Amino acid sequence: MHGRTHRSRAVSGPRGLFVAFEGGDGVGKTTQQALLADYLRAQGRDVVVTREPGDSRIGPQVRAIVLDGGELDARAEALLFAADRADHVAHVVRPALARGAVVLVDRYVDSSVTYQGEGRGLGREQIAAISTFATQGLLPDLTVVLDLDEAARAERVRRQGYVDRIEREPDHLHERVRRAFLELAAAAPDRYLVVDAARPAEEIAAEIAVAVEKVLRT
Amino acid sequence: MHGRTHRSRAVSGPRGLFVAFEGGDGVGKTTQQALLADYLRAQGRDVVVTREPGDSRIGPQVRAIVLDGGELDARAEALLFAADRADHVAHVVRPALARGAVVLVDRYVDSSVTYQGEGRGLGREQIAAISTFATQGLLPDLTVVLDLDEAARAERVRRQGYVDRIEREPDHLHERVRRAFLELAAAAPDRYLVVDAARPAEEIAAEIAVAVEKVLRT
Repeated sequence: MHGRTHRSRAVSGPRGLFVAFEGGDGVGKTTQQALLADYLRAQGRDVVVTREPGDSRIGPQVRAIVLDGGELDARAEALLFAADRADHVAHVVRPALARGAVVLVDRYVDSSVTYQGEGRGLGREQIAAISTFATQGLLPDLTVVLDLDEAARAERVRRQGYVDRIEREPDHLHERVRRAFLELAAAAPDRYLVVDAARPAEEIAAEIAVAVEKVLRT
Repeated sequence: MHGRTHRSRAVSGPRGLFVAFEGGDGVGKTTQQALLADYLRAQGRDVVVTREPGDSRIGPQVRAIVLDGGELDARAEALLFAADRADHVAHVVRPALARGAVVLVDRYVDSSVTYQGEGRGLGREQIAAISTFATQGLLPDLTVVLDLDEAARAERVRRQGYVDRIEREPDHLHERVRRAFLELAAAAPDRYLVVDAARPAEEIAAEIAVAVEKVLRT
């Protein structure tokens, strides 16, 4: 299954910008997304803050199935996330980009590739191909990978009292997911920024802002 | 995206049989499925009668999304059907085949390839690849295509008072779907039976029974 892929900047018309935040739970994706939104809004930009899975129109229902589904087949789960993504891209992300907005998404294709493709062993390429179908090949202009070693990440999650099914997985799963994020970034360095998530949030936010300004100037 | 495909007979252990009924609405799939079930049960066989979409554990919820989703993105819809299929195969079809049952399914992969791939223009190969992912390549031992010319089919549907979103599509869509079913059958004649659905139900049932007996003997 091969589809043409393209970055949002290739879309003609107003100049939208699409930024994804990726990394394990607890690394600070939501915080950095909010800080970048503040930074860009202070410049008068139209900013859309959104997340996957769940911020599509069918997201609440998809989420209910995934949570209620008992031992949901891993492939069924991956396809439900892909359906949510297709709806999210068609009805939230693309319309926002088309009007020239900056879209900041908390988790996107790479989360599926790492958690379902690598973590659950469904195959990175197959999961990437399904996401390409779902998104019609829409890739972020910039993907920010917040990287944190597993001991520090697990400790943060414990302190936040946030323990879901994924967190109950053994450490080596999280290590594999982390490595997969870094490999995806290494394979396309021009559209990734890997940041050390152990530093203070403000330092990280400044680094991300510099990278986003650079993309906005190109 | 390439996966190995295999027919259920290749599964070791007891000798299950997997038969799919395909064709447009109104051609008599449900009737023929019931008649074949009666025939095989009269022989003392364990028969599972099931359908897609909807007879998976997540089916009712998936169906609710598809019906409630307003202008649901075509790709999201195709992925929801694929999720339903993954769950159906994992939790209904494979367990039944593994215990040696005959599984009769009303619509399977070919309905997605024809309606979503061809009818909605999402691409037959892409939809087939997603189904291969969902089913881990499980194909029916025999697919029965009930073929009826469009005027006769549309008249039957009208008489039954069954008019859903698909039925409101123009005739040429139904013609394309019909042609796609016939092309799929022509490409793999050893695992398809195309029957003229204009004849009396009992005649059709007898023809299907002969074909099933032949597969059971091989």
